[in-house]
Amino acid sequence: MNTRFLKACNNEKVDTIPVWFMRQAGRYLNEYRKIREKYSIIEIIKNPEICVYVSILPVKKLNVDACILFSDLTTPLIFMDVEFDIVENEGPILLKTIENYKDISNLKNFDERKIYFVGETISILKQSLDVPIIGFIGGQFTFVSYLVEGKATRNFIKTKFLMLNETKIWHYLMEKITENLFMFAKYQIEKGVDALQIFDSWIYVLGSYEFENFVLPYLENLISKLKSFKVPIIYFSLGDLAIKFINKIDADVFSVDWRVDISQLFNIDKKFAIQGNLDPCVLLTSFENIKLRVEMLLNQIKNNKGYIFNCGHGILPQTPIENVKMLVEFVHQKGREIYGS
Amino acid sequence: MNTRFLKACNNEKVDTIPVWFMRQAGRYLNEYRKIREKYSIIEIIKNPEICVYVSILPVKKLNVDACILFSDLTTPLIFMDVEFDIVENEGPILLKTIENYKDISNLKNFDERKIYFVGETISILKQSLDVPIIGFIGGQFTFVSYLVEGKATRNFIKTKFLMLNETKIWHYLMEKITENLFMFAKYQIEKGVDALQIFDSWIYVLGSYEFENFVLPYLENLISKLKSFKVPIIYFSLGDLAIKFINKIDADVFSVDWRVDISQLFNIDKKFAIQGNLDPCVLLTSFENIKLRVEMLLNQIKNNKGYIFNCGHGILPQTPIENVKMLVEFVHQKGREIYGS
Repeated sequence: MNTRFLKACNNEKVDTIPVWFMRQAGRYLNEYRKIREKYSIIEIIKNPEICVYVSILPVKKLNVDACILFSDLTTPLIFMDVEFDIVENEGPILLKTIENYKDISNLKNFDERKIYFVGETISILKQSLDVPIIGFIGGQFTFVSYLVEGKATRNFIKTKFLMLNETKIWHYLMEKITENLFMFAKYQIEKGVDALQIFDSWIYVLGSYEFENFVLPYLENLISKLKSFKVPIIYFSLGDLAIKFINKIDADVFSVDWRVDISQLFNIDKKFAIQGNLDPCVLLTSFENIKLRVEMLLNQIKNNKGYIFNCGHGILPQTPIENVKMLVEFVHQKGREIYGS
Repeated sequence: MNTRFLKACNNEKVDTIPVWFMRQAGRYLNEYRKIREKYSIIEIIKNPEICVYVSILPVKKLNVDACILFSDLTTPLIFMDVEFDIVENEGPILLKTIENYKDISNLKNFDERKIYFVGETISILKQSLDVPIIGFIGGQFTFVSYLVEGKATRNFIKTKFLMLNETKIWHYLMEKITENLFMFAKYQIEKGVDALQIFDSWIYVLGSYEFENFVLPYLENLISKLKSFKVPIIYFSLGDLAIKFINKIDADVFSVDWRVDISQLFNIDKKFAIQGNLDPCVLLTSFENIKLRVEMLLNQIKNNKGYIFNCGHGILPQTPIENVKMLVEFVHQKGREIYGS
């Protein structure tokens, strides 16, 4: 088993820098695009054989150090019995958005019988891989914004309105969602994932006051309950809001985007590991430019904290696979130089 | 003439806190919605009588302390001879995006004969108002992203690709756009605007490296040339990237959104004034909640820097006008208490 990813999560000594990518099973891969001509994302998730194939694809092709379970922010809609349409290029569109107590009461609680295919996928992956498997849940704010807006949004107006003007409903919803996302994460861990990433992409639309009062207490609660399972918990978000609250968020790893100055993260006096930082747009440029930017990034690494190479967001569909392959090799090589192994 | 807005821009003593809003002439006003049933934004801009009517509307209704010239990020497309379609709810869509040297050479340079209606609107506004008039240009990155993407975008991939992989073309484009936005701003100042706001909303999609190397030198150049005209220059952007570079951006006023901790801004040892900060979503909530949030914001004001009340982004179309009216009155009242007048 290749353990350098898990070691880096725990700030242990590694032979080189581990690498994986968000959306490493994605549209930049020919094979993935072919699968997607036949199946929607939800159909892939519901079919363990296809889901395993898709999850493993990049591990074989790229020599990355971890396998992310192929999943989606909206997977819990399945066990919650929330109805949606699949719209091409837009993802699921809810038939009815969540607005009041009754809507929230109608959300079904976690039931592993309705989501058994996720467990089957994890079991097959466990037998097929010699790299760790990363489980996947959305962060509460990011997941709730989907329920309230009914689809991907740019401005989060309905979500903020509920939060600020229907505060009791907001707290009721966040409590229920926290419990359900926890149960779904727990299920993935029990089925065998070696680490769990919380995808909380959209918190950066909030100011500090909103985050601290309406989101952070639920996040603290979720992470503290998840930590009892002894697998590394990775907290991913865009922007630098999470970093302002880094002392209150007890994740093992902070996955950050290109807006965060990671040299400052290495100087924070707290135990955590760091993941990410490269703008995925850099992967669209020349080998020469990619290497230049990766070197600039890796020059900031210090041995006091574990570091996992990743982009600050998912791999873009336009990315040439040669660039990704070259990048993995380059990071591994540079990591050996940096760690002197 | 009501001068408290201009005084605050210059950190001078004021009787109370000046207030105005981005998109104060917008869809939350009945009268504006009626005008927009008949005319597109570009048609309003091209017709001085309608443009004056729309610009003055909120000044009369709300008792705000400044009038923003009704305009749009894309107004310069008119003198640049860039062809576009108007698509409802999407704004102008370019018929051809800007990709190479030839496309850039084909962009026509500023010619006031093609944009005379803007000058006429300003002249009429000058005669009709007893509050200062704020002129309007886009920031270079924000304007260029429109040329390169051809429309509003979420991910700015084409723009970043040009910046990072076609660097010479990028610099050629930024140089030409800087000169033209400067000329357009100069024209507005010569026609009589009392202040000028640079709308650079989208810079927050960039990391520090990209901003510093591919955007900031042009912005420094633009602002330093504009400062010779002795009208206050307001730099508006979303997120907190501009604040990281506040010592290099020589604007008189920084207009910030709710992601910026303004109490820290008041402690920065440099002369500038501060504008904004309230999340416009707060204006959708109850009087009680609006007052609470405004008080929290105003408690951070210190006398060493001028402060202009505004939201961190434009007023939302859903905003009840009663809330906006109440807010203006409340800020004026609180301002009198704070400044002891």
